[in-house]
Amino acid sequence: MQIDVLTLFPQMFEGPMGLSMMWKAQELGLLHLRLHDLRGWGEGRRRQVDDTPCGGGGGMILRADVLVRAIEEVRSGDEQPVILFTPQGRVFNQKVAAQLAQQEGLLLVCGHYEGVDERVRQLAITDEISIGDYVITGGELAAMVVIDATVRQLPGVLGAEHAAAQDSHADGLLEGPHYTRPTDFRGLQVPELLLSGDHGRIATWRRRQSLLRTRQRRPDLLATARLNDEERDWLAQRETDPQYPDA
Amino acid sequence: MQIDVLTLFPQMFEGPMGLSMMWKAQELGLLHLRLHDLRGWGEGRRRQVDDTPCGGGGGMILRADVLVRAIEEVRSGDEQPVILFTPQGRVFNQKVAAQLAQQEGLLLVCGHYEGVDERVRQLAITDEISIGDYVITGGELAAMVVIDATVRQLPGVLGAEHAAAQDSHADGLLEGPHYTRPTDFRGLQVPELLLSGDHGRIATWRRRQSLLRTRQRRPDLLATARLNDEERDWLAQRETDPQYPDA
Repeated sequence: MQIDVLTLFPQMFEGPMGLSMMWKAQELGLLHLRLHDLRGWGEGRRRQVDDTPCGGGGGMILRADVLVRAIEEVRSGDEQPVILFTPQGRVFNQKVAAQLAQQEGLLLVCGHYEGVDERVRQLAITDEISIGDYVITGGELAAMVVIDATVRQLPGVLGAEHAAAQDSHADGLLEGPHYTRPTDFRGLQVPELLLSGDHGRIATWRRRQSLLRTRQRRPDLLATARLNDEERDWLAQRETDPQYPDA
Repeated sequence: MQIDVLTLFPQMFEGPMGLSMMWKAQELGLLHLRLHDLRGWGEGRRRQVDDTPCGGGGGMILRADVLVRAIEEVRSGDEQPVILFTPQGRVFNQKVAAQLAQQEGLLLVCGHYEGVDERVRQLAITDEISIGDYVITGGELAAMVVIDATVRQLPGVLGAEHAAAQDSHADGLLEGPHYTRPTDFRGLQVPELLLSGDHGRIATWRRRQSLLRTRQRRPDLLATARLNDEERDWLAQRETDPQYPDA
C-alpha cells in the first residue's frame, strides 16, 4: 500500500512511523510511506501557504490555490482517495480502517492553523475523516493514527502470532482481561482456569469476559455486535445471576 | 502542567511534541513533559517487560510487577491521575480534555503488545481512556493526541489571536466554512458577505453556517448543543425553506 502525506511538518512522522509495527510494515515492503512538505508549493520568496480569514477573525487559513495544486501534483491517479483530517469529517472507527486497507493507495492531507479554505473541499478532497470529537493542533497526529490502524489490517503486518481479528473492536466487542507471570502479585492471583491447560474452557471464558466487559463499559457496542444465541442466553442468565459460571 | 509518560518508545514523542504548538507550550513553561523509558524497570539482563499470556494465545502481555513498580516510582503523588490508554477506556472528547486540563499533572501509561496484565488496572490505574473505536499498535499516539488536545486548553498556549473556544466541539458544534485569498479560484468565489466588512452580519452568518454544517454532518451533536431560541427558530425556518437567508 502506498500512502502519500501532505504536511507542513514531515519531520513529525519520523519517530512514530519509524518504529515498532510501522517500521516493520515498511521493512516488509507492505507500506510505502511518502512524506511531502506542503511548504514546497508555497507562494513567493517566503513560500507562503496560508493567509488571514476573509471576513476577519483569528487564526490563519490554508490557501486553496496552494493546497489544490499540491494535491494535484502528488496524487497518483483519479482512483486514489484524498482524505482531509478535520473535526467535521466522518468519525473514524475499525470499519473505516478496514475499508481504507482495501485501497491501493491513500493521499492524506494534514490541515493546520485555523483550517483550510472551503474550496479545497469542493475541488480536491474525496473524503473527510475525524479521529474523534476533540480538537488537535494539526492533522498530523490524526494521519498517524489512521495509518497505524489501517496498516495493521494489511495481511502479513502483524505476523502469525497475533491476528488483528483478536483485537478489541475487530468483532465489535472489547477484549477481556489478560494475565501473565507472576501468577501471584501482591496477593492478586491469575484466575486458576488460565493455568489449567483446558483450552476449550479457556476460550469460552475469554469470550464471556469480553461480553461482560463490553456490557459493563460500552453497552452501545453490544447493541450492534454479532453474538450467537448461546452467547445472548448466557449474558441474560448472568444478568439475573452474577454467580452464573464463566466457563 | 507536568505530564509524565511511561513508554517503551520515548523517541516516538520527540518529533510530534517538539514542533508547533507543543513546542511553544514547553518554551512558555506551560507544559513540562517528562518521558520515562519503561525498559528501565525491566527484569534481568535483558530488561524484560513482557511475557506470554497465561492460558495461551498470541501476543505478549506487559507484566504487572514491572509496570506497577514503574508507575509507583514515577508518580508525583496520590493526587496525580494515572491514565492507561486502551480501547476499553472511556471515550475521549473535548469535555474530557477540559477536565484533564484542570489537573496539575498527569501520568500517562502507554500499553503495547497484546495488552497489560489486568492487575495493573486493579493496583495502579485511576482512569482509562480510548481516543476512538479503533485499534492502534500502542498507547503512544493516543498519549500524544490527548496531550495535544489537553494542552491547547491551557490559558496562554494558543495566544490572543486564536481562542480554543472558537474550535469545532468547543460549544458542541462543528465549525462552518473558512475562506482566504484568492477571492476567485477556478471560478469559485469567496461569499460576498465575507468581503463586506459588516462584522455583525458576518458573525451571524458564521454561526448559522456552523449550525447548518453540524445538522448536515453530525446531527447527533446538534441534539446536545447549547442553542438559543433564535437559533432553533432559524434552523426550523431553514429546514422548511432552503432559501431562508443566512445572515
